[in-house]
Amino acid sequence: MCRFLAYSGAPITMDELLYQPENSLIHQSYKARERAEPLNGDGFGVGWYDFNIDETPGVFLSVSPAWNNRNLRSIAPKIRSNCIFAHVRAASFGDVTQENCHPFKYKNLLFMHNGDVGGFRKIKRDLRSRLSDEIYDWVQGDTDSEHFFALFLNRLTESGKPEHPQTFVTVLQETIAELLQISREKNVTEPASLNVAITNGKFTLATKYISDSTKKPNTLYYSSGSRFECHGGVCHMLPVNSSQHSVLIVSEKLTEFDKDWQEVPLNHFVVVNEDLSVFLQPINVSF
Amino acid sequence: MCRFLAYSGAPITMDELLYQPENSLIHQSYKARERAEPLNGDGFGVGWYDFNIDETPGVFLSVSPAWNNRNLRSIAPKIRSNCIFAHVRAASFGDVTQENCHPFKYKNLLFMHNGDVGGFRKIKRDLRSRLSDEIYDWVQGDTDSEHFFALFLNRLTESGKPEHPQTFVTVLQETIAELLQISREKNVTEPASLNVAITNGKFTLATKYISDSTKKPNTLYYSSGSRFECHGGVCHMLPVNSSQHSVLIVSEKLTEFDKDWQEVPLNHFVVVNEDLSVFLQPINVSF
Amino acid sequence: MCRFLAYSGAPITMDELLYQPENSLIHQSYKARERAEPLNGDGFGVGWYDFNIDETPGVFLSVSPAWNNRNLRSIAPKIRSNCIFAHVRAASFGDVTQENCHPFKYKNLLFMHNGDVGGFRKIKRDLRSRLSDEIYDWVQGDTDSEHFFALFLNRLTESGKPEHPQTFVTVLQETIAELLQISREKNVTEPASLNVAITNGKFTLATKYISDSTKKPNTLYYSSGSRFECHGGVCHMLPVNSSQHSVLIVSEKLTEFDKDWQEVPLNHFVVVNEDLSVFLQPINVSF
Amino acid sequence: MCRFLAYSGAPITMDELLYQPENSLIHQSYKARERAEPLNGDGFGVGWYDFNIDETPGVFLSVSPAWNNRNLRSIAPKIRSNCIFAHVRAASFGDVTQENCHPFKYKNLLFMHNGDVGGFRKIKRDLRSRLSDEIYDWVQGDTDSEHFFALFLNRLTESGKPEHPQTFVTVLQETIAELLQISREKNVTEPASLNVAITNGKFTLATKYISDSTKKPNTLYYSSGSRFECHGGVCHMLPVNSSQHSVLIVSEKLTEFDKDWQEVPLNHFVVVNEDLSVFLQPINVSF
Repeated sequence: MCRFLAYSGAPITMDELLYQPENSLIHQSYKARERAEPLNGDGFGVGWYDFNIDETPGVFLSVSPAWNNRNLRSIAPKIRSNCIFAHVRAASFGDVTQENCHPFKYKNLLFMHNGDVGGFRKIKRDLRSRLSDEIYDWVQGDTDSEHFFALFLNRLTESGKPEHPQTFVTVLQETIAELLQISREKNVTEPASLNVAITNGKFTLATKYISDSTKKPNTLYYSSGSRFECHGGVCHMLPVNSSQHSVLIVSEKLTEFDKDWQEVPLNHFVVVNEDLSVFLQPINVSF
Repeated sequence: MCRFLAYSGAPITMDELLYQPENSLIHQSYKARERAEPLNGDGFGVGWYDFNIDETPGVFLSVSPAWNNRNLRSIAPKIRSNCIFAHVRAASFGDVTQENCHPFKYKNLLFMHNGDVGGFRKIKRDLRSRLSDEIYDWVQGDTDSEHFFALFLNRLTESGKPEHPQTFVTVLQETIAELLQISREKNVTEPASLNVAITNGKFTLATKYISDSTKKPNTLYYSSGSRFECHGGVCHMLPVNSSQHSVLIVSEKLTEFDKDWQEVPLNHFVVVNEDLSVFLQPINVSF
Repeated sequence: MCRFLAYSGAPITMDELLYQPENSLIHQSYKARERAEPLNGDGFGVGWYDFNIDETPGVFLSVSPAWNNRNLRSIAPKIRSNCIFAHVRAASFGDVTQENCHPFKYKNLLFMHNGDVGGFRKIKRDLRSRLSDEIYDWVQGDTDSEHFFALFLNRLTESGKPEHPQTFVTVLQETIAELLQISREKNVTEPASLNVAITNGKFTLATKYISDSTKKPNTLYYSSGSRFECHGGVCHMLPVNSSQHSVLIVSEKLTEFDKDWQEVPLNHFVVVNEDLSVFLQPINVSF
Repeated sequence: MCRFLAYSGAPITMDELLYQPENSLIHQSYKARERAEPLNGDGFGVGWYDFNIDETPGVFLSVSPAWNNRNLRSIAPKIRSNCIFAHVRAASFGDVTQENCHPFKYKNLLFMHNGDVGGFRKIKRDLRSRLSDEIYDWVQGDTDSEHFFALFLNRLTESGKPEHPQTFVTVLQETIAELLQISREKNVTEPASLNVAITNGKFTLATKYISDSTKKPNTLYYSSGSRFECHGGVCHMLPVNSSQHSVLIVSEKLTEFDKDWQEVPLNHFVVVNEDLSVFLQPINVSF
């Protein structure tokens, strides 16, 4: 299990997103509110884009807990971006190593995951055998998360389709279907819990998904407005206006202003388009 | 705040002490039971003696949390000793650095601390000015804990007295008195909370102390018997017999067998003599 | 001993400065050319300014060698700045800890050092006793370098003078004089070797200094032009033009184009003014 | 490339092996003498046995350079063993991560490698496909070294043969043959350079091997006597006597006493039997 945050919109420093909100991701790293187990201290990662430089994101990962990392504390106020991913980890499958920290980066894409692929140990080898040589070699760690992303990348690169939110929707659905099929073949009975987020720095997709409808999914919220601002330790998503749009997708609400946050319905995509419009769409998985 | 464990007695592996008990120190690193804040994830340290080699202890320290440290996991079952100190840290004063991890080592001595020296920032410089050049240079970090130990070492080395439990009792009392005097001069109003443990590998002293009797001290327990043993995940202090003695001093009870554990009375020393006899003694601080 | 690089001028990514030159600072971290000992593997640090955000620099420090740090490798191409400091360390005084990594940061200032303060152990305590409480508390590590910077800060803050290159020149000269005076009082015979760089993100000073004229100083070069550019692994300082200015100050030449680099004369300041004009000035130390 | 040391014999502390010799492994970590590139700063590892506790080794690994690791410096004098493996790494294939540090541990076995498997990227996937599920899951990193060991373990576990030096000789020869066959099928032209050491804490095998006889193999030496002793910084292998035997196998001579060291002939095994007798044996690889 883990906690994450995906931001798109007006330029914002990492500090405003990660440290200043009352229930910030840093706070969630030691005292998450909406998990039975409050601790997410098995490493962290941040990724961000600067299209003035190029299309690929920068990534900073560490196995130390987010709450006491001095480099993160020093860097966060100095990095401002239109698109930021951040993740604090509570290890399930995969050791606490830098290779197992989210977000995972492939070329211009970032990916992160909250949840777990039930029975991952039983399906890992089969899953890997399906990957192209390029994606096979790209995998560095041993988490269920990175392997799910690898399966997605495998389908995406083989499809040859251009990067578009609806391409990602389709390929993500196919990837989930493929995963469930492998799991069934390997007699996995545990559900796949897949709250994931993926971006190319321009558009972002997130899912709230659990394969077993009798189980409780992980929480996921989004907030849409003109700009996320903090003053004196109080943070707000300002109302939409014509000139600016910003969207936050989070595992937990960052503030107590409940009306700032919308709960994502079960088994749905949140799609943040390049124009920062937000769109909810059911996840259709058939296999 | 922190949690610690001090073991003296029959040879035991670190694994049996640190990992196997139900409420082990590793468990306390992420879910301590007797603190308002359950997390002690800001680094850890272990120290141990092997008198077949020499009189000075080995120390292994890390800023990573104890619960996910692979080296500790690998080393713990392979180190067996008659005297083991272990500590998991929740940082108050002092950054999360290796120099600030407990136990602190000075020659053949180990020291660790649970609590804090109230108003430490205000008294640090005065405290340092009292140290001999040797002890001044020995200090490497910036915790209240290490500086309290430095003040103790300063008095101990100047006293020229031989190492004996009652020498340590006297010098510890004088050190607390000196600390309270500096604090008063600097108008510190916060209490000093001093649950500490110190050993030379042969005898061990621990204190349960708070300078303000209206405040609640940190918890401290001890257990005395023939041998601490774990079978199938259930650990017990076996009853005293004539041939073996073992003593555990802990911030929290490691097991649910309440009768295995004695609560240390407020403002008392627990003295574990070289023959492993245990002795409770009030702390007399006058200044 | 160490190697460093101070850049001022047209916006440039850390990658172009740290990785792309033939004899880049990363290369110098494992194979420096102009030191008897080629290895600078005891940690590293980078600092940079973004005045669009605020006046204080971001700093990223690590005890791991620069050549194999994955975070530095990932961050360097994504950070572009007008003012970058970078340092690779070969530890002399002071353990290999994050607190001992350069550049040191005080408010809006950065400082780094190549060389050593001879006999530092003998003068450390006296030096610290001269510091104001604020600067005393600011010191975190135990290197000669940070303590020299603390002595400078002590004089600078006490002077109350505004930030100006000539203020820094004066205060640096006084700081060196004070250091030499303390050293003489403590009967230190080893020379002070002080190649340092200091910046507020707007102007930069560097020194090439050794207190004993019979000893060899550390190397220091600078390069001044319109812009430092790399194409296909070949880097050049382009000739001055009217619209752009850039200045590099380095322990070792980054390229083999000798005419791109000027050697700094012994016991001289290199002053890079806010308009990026470069000025050499003798260091006058009298005491 | 890397440097290693394998010790069997009279109990010795890690300190005497790793720090005290003139050309100690710690010295080799920054200034190896018999490699073109003197630096082995990409992490290190030590492993040791204590049969009084159990048959499996303890392992301590770190990505930081051996020369400045404070934990190694503190632990080394306190660990005394009859069988010690130690390795300092210069990364070729595989990132600088803890999973990629040698020695690798499988149950009661330790393995380490100096050299590289030419063209490893081309054969990695095929090699992995040959592993049993158990060994496949055991692999944690992505070095050529760990994968070669995995191929060995695969054959060893499938053979069902008891642990015996000649079993290991046979299986190692078959493993090399299998590796060369895969390489040929994948059109690899680079040679496999395989100086490896493997132990179960009772007997030890090492190889000096290169698959292309026109290329220069890595150096390998051994020293056999009663006991390796250091006095005042001078270390010696004392002459054989009837009561004690000790054997050192090293990438580089630890001392300048040339007659203490025997060069291992090309393409030979050094076998150290349980009685500490030493045996040289040609490596026969046919495929």
